[in-house]
Formats: sequence, C-alpha cells, structure tokens
Amino acid sequence: MERPKRDLVDEVSGLAARRGFFWNAYEIYGGVSGFLTWGPLGAVLKRKIADLWRKTFVLKHGFIEIDAPLVTPYPVFEASGHVEGFKDTMVACLKCSQRFKADELLSKAGARHVETLSPSQVDSQIHRLGVTCPECDGTLGKASLFTTMFQTTIGPLGDSVGFLRPETAQGMFTEFKRTYSVERKKMPLGIAQVGRVFRNEISPRQGPIRLREIDFMEVELFYDPERPECPFLGEVRDVMMNLVPESVLLKGEEEMLEVSVGSALDEGFVKSEWLGYFMGLAQGFMSLLGIPPSRQRFREHLEGERAHYSKQTFDQEVLLSRWGWVEVSGHAHRTDFDLSAHMSKTGEDLTAERVLRKAVRKSHRRVRPKTELIKELVGDDIGAVMRELNSWPQEQTLGELDDKGHVYVAGYRLKRQLFRIETIEKKTQIERFIPYVAEPSFGLERVAYSTLEYGFKSKEGRVVLALPPQVAPVEAAVFPIVSRKPLEEMAGRIHSELLEKGIRATLESKETIGRRYARADEIGVPVCITVDRQSLKDETVTARDRDSWEQLRIPAASCTEFVQKILGSESFGEAAQGMAT
Amino acid sequence: MERPKRDLVDEVSGLAARRGFFWNAYEIYGGVSGFLTWGPLGAVLKRKIADLWRKTFVLKHGFIEIDAPLVTPYPVFEASGHVEGFKDTMVACLKCSQRFKADELLSKAGARHVETLSPSQVDSQIHRLGVTCPECDGTLGKASLFTTMFQTTIGPLGDSVGFLRPETAQGMFTEFKRTYSVERKKMPLGIAQVGRVFRNEISPRQGPIRLREIDFMEVELFYDPERPECPFLGEVRDVMMNLVPESVLLKGEEEMLEVSVGSALDEGFVKSEWLGYFMGLAQGFMSLLGIPPSRQRFREHLEGERAHYSKQTFDQEVLLSRWGWVEVSGHAHRTDFDLSAHMSKTGEDLTAERVLRKAVRKSHRRVRPKTELIKELVGDDIGAVMRELNSWPQEQTLGELDDKGHVYVAGYRLKRQLFRIETIEKKTQIERFIPYVAEPSFGLERVAYSTLEYGFKSKEGRVVLALPPQVAPVEAAVFPIVSRKPLEEMAGRIHSELLEKGIRATLESKETIGRRYARADEIGVPVCITVDRQSLKDETVTARDRDSWEQLRIPAASCTEFVQKILGSESFGEAAQGMAT
Repeated sequence: MERPKRDLVDEVSGLAARRGFFWNAYEIYGGVSGFLTWGPLGAVLKRKIADLWRKTFVLKHGFIEIDAPLVTPYPVFEASGHVEGFKDTMVACLKCSQRFKADELLSKAGARHVETLSPSQVDSQIHRLGVTCPECDGTLGKASLFTTMFQTTIGPLGDSVGFLRPETAQGMFTEFKRTYSVERKKMPLGIAQVGRVFRNEISPRQGPIRLREIDFMEVELFYDPERPECPFLGEVRDVMMNLVPESVLLKGEEEMLEVSVGSALDEGFVKSEWLGYFMGLAQGFMSLLGIPPSRQRFREHLEGERAHYSKQTFDQEVLLSRWGWVEVSGHAHRTDFDLSAHMSKTGEDLTAERVLRKAVRKSHRRVRPKTELIKELVGDDIGAVMRELNSWPQEQTLGELDDKGHVYVAGYRLKRQLFRIETIEKKTQIERFIPYVAEPSFGLERVAYSTLEYGFKSKEGRVVLALPPQVAPVEAAVFPIVSRKPLEEMAGRIHSELLEKGIRATLESKETIGRRYARADEIGVPVCITVDRQSLKDETVTARDRDSWEQLRIPAASCTEFVQKILGSESFGEAAQGMAT
Repeated sequence: MERPKRDLVDEVSGLAARRGFFWNAYEIYGGVSGFLTWGPLGAVLKRKIADLWRKTFVLKHGFIEIDAPLVTPYPVFEASGHVEGFKDTMVACLKCSQRFKADELLSKAGARHVETLSPSQVDSQIHRLGVTCPECDGTLGKASLFTTMFQTTIGPLGDSVGFLRPETAQGMFTEFKRTYSVERKKMPLGIAQVGRVFRNEISPRQGPIRLREIDFMEVELFYDPERPECPFLGEVRDVMMNLVPESVLLKGEEEMLEVSVGSALDEGFVKSEWLGYFMGLAQGFMSLLGIPPSRQRFREHLEGERAHYSKQTFDQEVLLSRWGWVEVSGHAHRTDFDLSAHMSKTGEDLTAERVLRKAVRKSHRRVRPKTELIKELVGDDIGAVMRELNSWPQEQTLGELDDKGHVYVAGYRLKRQLFRIETIEKKTQIERFIPYVAEPSFGLERVAYSTLEYGFKSKEGRVVLALPPQVAPVEAAVFPIVSRKPLEEMAGRIHSELLEKGIRATLESKETIGRRYARADEIGVPVCITVDRQSLKDETVTARDRDSWEQLRIPAASCTEFVQKILGSESFGEAAQGMAT
C-alpha cells in the first residue's frame, strides 16, 4: 500500500464529502467560508480522537476536565490582553473590496517572518514586493488591525459586550479559584477542556485548515514555579524530536535539530519541564494517529510572533501535502501572566498555597481606624465612612497613608494619626504564590484532517483509508456473502453481538461483495467479517484485513474477541494467533 | 433513605459548587447571570448523560449523528422563521431600568397562559393586575419584543450578520441534502446532534433552569408522510404516561390523564406515531436517571404558545422542588415546515425519494428555445441570451410563458412562439416528497440538574447523592482503612486495575474512614472498597453500598467484576451473589 506523493487535499476532501466525514457547511446557501459540518463518520472520528486525547493527556495524569461557557464578558478578555492583542493585520483591495490576511498575502509573495510585522511594515513590504489583489489585481489599501474574536451582546441592554472565546484557556483561569478549592488545593493541578472556540478569520480559504469554528483540546497545567519539576518527564526523556528553535530561525534558517526531550531541556532550548513533557507526549499522540515522528516538528515562535501571554511557544507541526508544515498544537509557557492579569483586574486572590517543610515567621502590617477619633471629625456620617473604609483592601489604605499621609473617604480627608498601624508577626508553614502555567493546546479539526490525509492510501488503484483502528468510525462490517436468508440471519446474529459489546459495527447485504469491501476500505473499516456457505456448515467466518486484504477463517463465536484485539492495536496477524481455524 | 420534601435548590446548588458539579461562571468577575461552569464532576455527569441519551435515542435505532456549526448566517434563520418568531416579550422598569420577561412577571402575579399574549395584551394585563417592578416597585413601561438569539458578525465586512444557533435542529435541515445522500437515501432517517445552543435570555434568574448556554440533545427524524408508521412503537405502546392535552388546558384545567402511549395515539391526543414513540422513550430515559414516571408529565402547547414551526408540541415536564413542573424535553411535530422553508429560500431540492411498488406513468412539460429563431432576433447577443436562459429553472420559464406569453432575457423580450413546449411522459417507480419531521429535544443541563435533585437524599442527617450508578462521575473509591504502607500498596493495585478496565475510580488515604465514606456518599460514588488488616491475610476487601451503607467482604480479585455489575445496573445484593466470602 502506498501513500500518494501528490497534493491530496482535493481527493481527501472529496472523499470526506461523499462518504460523510466533513463538507462545507451551509452548502444549500452557497456556503460560508470557514465553517464545516462534520458528518456521520466525521463526528465519530472527532469524538474518538478527543477520547484518545483525554486518555493520553488527562486521565493518565489524574488531571480533571471542566466545561466553562463559550460566551465571555468583555472584561475577561480585556484583562487577558486579547482585546488589545488578538488581532490580525488586514489588507483590503481598493478595487474589489475583498479583505485579505496580510501575512498570507506577503508569504505568498515570498516575504518571511511575516507574522511579526506591524501594519506600517506590511504597507512597505507590499510596496517593495509590488503585491496586488490576488482576486482582481487591483491596488491594495493601507493595512489595518482587525480583532479576530466574534463579538456579541449579552442580554437586552446593548451595553454588555461579550466575545465568543478564541481559546478554552481563559475558562481555566477565570474558574481557577473555585476549581483549585474543589480539588482541595492540589498542586500541580491540570485542568482540561475540550470544546468549541471561535476565530473570526478575515478570509479563510484553506478548507479544514483555517476554520472559524474549532474544537480545542487544552490542558492548563498549574504548577509552583519554585517546584517546576514534572514527575512524568522520565517517560519521554529519551524521545527524539525535530526541533526548530529560535536560535536557528534567527539565522534565517529552518533546519531541524534532532534532539531528545531531555537534551532539549538540558541545553535550554525548552524552558519548562512540563512544556518539554507535553511536547514529547504530543509527538506520541500524533504518532498513534498515523503521523510518523519524521513528519512532525516543533518550531519555536519568534518574539514578535508569540502570543502576548507566552514567554515561549513551540508549534507542533505536521507535514501536509498542500500546505507544507501546518500547526496542529501549540505549547505555550504562559507563566503567571493570565492569573496575574485576572487578579489585578478583579482584586480576587488567585494564589495557591505552598506548604513549607518548616514553619517560618512572617510579618505583615495591619491598619485599624481609631473609630472614636474619626467620629469626632465626621459626626453622623460615621456609618458611611466606616462602610467605605471597610470595603477597601488593607493594602490600599496602607499604601495611601504611606504615600500621602491621608486618605479620602466619603468626602472626608482622614489623616494618618486617625489610624493605628501595627506590624503583626506569625509563624506559618504556608506561603502563597501565583502558579505558573504550561499549556498544550490542540485544534481537533486539524488533527482529524491530518489523520485522514496520512491514512489516505491507494492499493491497486483503489482508495484505502488506513485509519488507526482505535479511531475508525466504523469498527467492523458484517457481510452475508450473498443476500440469502440463512446467511443474512447468521450475519445478523454476529452483528448484534458486536453491537452489544459496544463495537460500532455495520451490516450490509446489498451489492456485490467486492463493492462492499471497496466501500468499507474507503471509510477505513479495519475488519470485514463475511458469512458464506461454509459458515453454515462449520460456524466459521472470513475475517478480512483492510490494509493487506489478507483473509482468514476464524470461528464465528470469536468475532467479538477478534475485533476487540484489533481495536486494542494488535495487528491482524497477532489478533489471529491461536484463532485461525 | 429519604427524599427531602422542602425546596432543595439551594442545598443542591451549594453541594454542586462545593464539590464541583456546577457553579456560577465568572464568579471572580461578579458573575454573569445565565452562565454556569460545569466542574470536574459535573462535566463528567453531563458527558455520561449524553452518552446514555445516545444509546437510548440514537445508536439503538441506527440513527446517525452530525456536528454542524454554531454560528449561523442570517438567511438560515430568516428562512426558518426564527428572525421573525424567536422573540420574548420584555418589559422595562421606568425607574430602575431593569428588564423583565413579561410572562414571568405576569405568571407571578397570577395570570395564566401568559406565553400566548401579545405585547399590547401584556400591557393591559399589567395594568389590570397592577404589576410593578419586582426590584424597586417602580412603574413598568410598555412591553416590547426582543429577539433572544445572540447576534454577531461573520468576517471583517460588518454586513454579514450571523446568529448563535438557538437549537441544533436547523443544522439537520441545512445539512439534510448532503446527509441524505451520504446515507444513501435512507428513509426514515434519524439525524442527531448533541451540542451547545444559545438563548439570549432577557433576565435569567433561575440558576441551572434558565441558562443562556445549553447543551441540546436533539433528533430530527425525517419520515415519509405517506408512510408515517414508527417500527419501534410496539416497544412503548403499553407504557403509561401522564398527559395534559390541549383539550384539558382549554378548559382552564391542568389535570393529568393517565394513558398509554398506544391509546394517546389511538384517541388522537398525539398526532404522530414517531412523536408518541419518542415520548414513551423519553419517559423511560428520565426514569433511568432516577425520576419516577409519577413525577413526569407531558403537557401540550396551546396554539399561541407553540413555536412557529410546530403543528403539535408536548413538553416533557419533571416536578422540581422550587419551580414545580419544569420542561426537560420538547417533542415537536415539525412536519415539512423547515425543509420547505429552506427549499423556497434557496431553490435547492430538499426532497426525498419514495420507491413505489409499481411503476407509474408521470408526465411533465419541457420547454426548449428555438435557437435559430432567437438568433435571428438577437444576433451576436445569442451567447448571453442562451447562458441566462439556461440558468433559469424550467418551471420559471414555463410559468412566465404561460402567464405572460413572453419572457425577458438579457434585455430581450422573447415571445412564446420562440419556444418549443412539449409534454414528456415517462414510467417511473420514484416519487419525490418533502419529508416530515418528528423532533425530541432535550436540554442537557435541566436533565442533569433534575438528576441531581432527585438523587439528593439524606440518611442519618447526612447527604447521600443517590445517582444512578451508570451516570455517577466517580464510579468507585478505593480506601486503605488507615494510611499504612502495605494497605496503601494493596489499595493502589486494586485502584490501578479498576482504572485499566476503564472504571473511573479514585484512591484516597487521608482522613478517617468515616469522613472518606461521607465524602464519597456526598458525590454519589456507588461503591467504596476498603482494604484493611484482614485483606492482607486473606485477599478479601470490604465493599460498601452507598445507599444502604451495607458492607460485605468480597475477594480482592473480584473488585472490577463487582463494580462492573453495579454499573451495569445490578443492585448491590445482586452483584454480590456468589461473590461474598
């Protein structure tokens, strides 16, 4: 079986639409670019990939998963820096009014590191390279910034702006305090989400690769920056990966270093153990889906290209037939950026606790109003004054008294003398800190598309979709060799038994057996089970391997066990051992 | 164990927030009403309920599931009637500017059938009943209509309005044509979706019951209106249900008829076999989740209350402690309303095929231009004229020629004489029709909340969350009776084995065993397994039942099998049979 070397996008997309993996949504309305519908097979493929991801990234480590809202109030993304920073540079054609993403235009024209350019740099590059409108050859206008979050209004008042989240991550940050408490102050704490995110792309033209709706699979791993060790690191330390670090990119090159996760950390290419661990895990995850490590690489973001919240980012990229290296996951060293931002915006305490080995003495200052003296000054307003004073954080009152020698409260100027300021000492074993965050973040549709493209193979001129059995949407097909009652009944029994054991099996008796095999191969069914005349005599059936087309007879009673072994990643030959009749 | 009779909402919500089922989202930002975060336990509970729903409603019938976008272009909801019809009547307080949902205000004031009132009827009811602002007692302004879909803009141009879908159903209609083809013209065809929908509620104040983001679980069952029989009906024909039909409501009463699904259909209370079948199934589904049929009813919508697309609707309601009867699912007889609407909007053929038993003769008229004659008239423009003519549907050309005796094409007036109109007869076994649709539609959060409230029980003054084992987020807990190494090691081995078999098990050794049992009961863990001194001697452990607190010793090696039996709905006693030592 061979993997075709040509551009596969049209063939994969054609198969996907014809057989029901995915197609352009709203076709009857002429389509809206950037939106796909995942059909009966694709919806299951996505769900199975998500479940495999949960197994690999979440359950194995005892992480937990939450489900936060998609609509998010403005202040959250203001605090997180997205309102300011989540923008693309856009260029409009002055003739046909089409809008384009500037970096895509420029990189097609041969420019490099285009994601780091400011609008005015884009303008001069367009001028220098003589770029015109790709649609009508018209002159391009000045570049501008466009916020690529979908905006909406919450409630009927019109003044409560909200955004559709462009990442699930902020949900883990806004809900961190409660989740940390629910999880009884566990640290490190891994919080995962799998769910829809939205990017209002300027002009998406790359089918399944640039979408306006994406299912993200993300972990925010919260850890103590003074205890940054990842206890699972040993499992991937020796995994070799292709790395394109900043130092190489800055030389204007893109060559890949082949290094182990361990040495990438030791040599300082990767700045966080957790990040390195997740990168090793991510490579294994994509390998499970059929993309060999040699077709994967981790490319570091240059400073200007990096999201505002990240101190270091690696994109996990997969080599695709048309688009070359395409990001399937991002690995960001988010530090305490987000929690700090939400703390300072809301005044809420989003710290975690570090239990020290030995108790230490800690001192802090406390301020108390001298109520009697203040009452002499403000008289009947004392109630209002005290209420306002009590609503202030201690630090604020202290700060203003230190800086200015007085505070203004409810219209009164209260001098330092009206307060008692003490230094309190206590012994404690608890220290508070803002956790650091390591984030692996996958785009499910790109992962699913890559899985389909790498599975797309041909054999004797026919398409065979060699999906890894554990993500195949149809796990087994049962065929009576011809449409005759006793054969159909026996096939029906086998089919029911498979369904009962939770195996996604189909049963088909129309068309020739050859056509049914071909249809099954095309959607990646790992095993076909055929009931024929001999089956009625000796209770055996034919099991047929999708990839080798090898056939062998097994007892009808062993079908379920056989399929379960295949789904458990045994090869056709292994599964057949001791079973063939 | 008793079910408390008082209002349970605060206790259930308190437990939910403390232990991580759900809480108000964006707490650190002061909260935004109508949005919940589902925590580590709640996210799993929701997923398990959705999986049980899939098993009950989708897989069992060979239906398929798709995954369409959430953001939907304006024309789709214009065609479907939502832009016009998906509105709530809103009343604002003239003093404090708060907005209220008119029907909620009026029903609190004692008015009835409030969902059917027009804005001016609302105004006169408010006047008649003397209703004022519930927040500040201020005077209420005139009622107005508010579209309860979240609106957004797709792309950078600002002229492409989109909505966040308020139901998943339209996805099944816009994607019907492709899905029907992918499923090789299967009919009846059940298409399901499970996913987020959005309702921009005016002023949601009912915690988990009135949300702005909801996960819907919907089936659109497409069937031939001339073959409306549901082949599965026999399975629920004798199921008894509480029905509140239109005829009772119109008398101003709310009494429930106790009828079987079969007689509800026979006596014409329910107008579609598929609808009746889904109602029977829905009652069984909620029963599996712990809500007895006696606490369920099906209430018919009155004409004014019914959604614009439905010819008959029943709400499945569950009796909740604070709010009384609350809808958990809707069962709508949508007929061909939606497909017809999209057909006439897009001009696309959304019909299905009916294969007749015998071929019939069908005649249709065909129109052909007499090209030579037309060319004489239009000369060199013949190309443009023919291109435009060919782009018209035959029916349009025919219709205009019949009505007016001519057509205007590319600026030319072409008379009827320039066309050849023939009647074609052919034999065919295929007839086309627009499918009818029966829709069961569940709101996952209300189902989950009802499950929690019905599971919320107390025993000896402590909370026991008696969740049905198959939806319990934690399926088993393993405890060494005290924190000693050999006990912990043995418990660890049992825990790992459970995890390996895919059982969601926890392992805890801190705190007293009593406290650990109490914590486990509170989150609904069906079985606790305790390793004690005796375990080290004879390889047995204690299994403890959550509901009866009964304990018995079983072989350590049988733990997995024991838990699997409990999850497979066997009782504690049944699971223990032949296993107790």
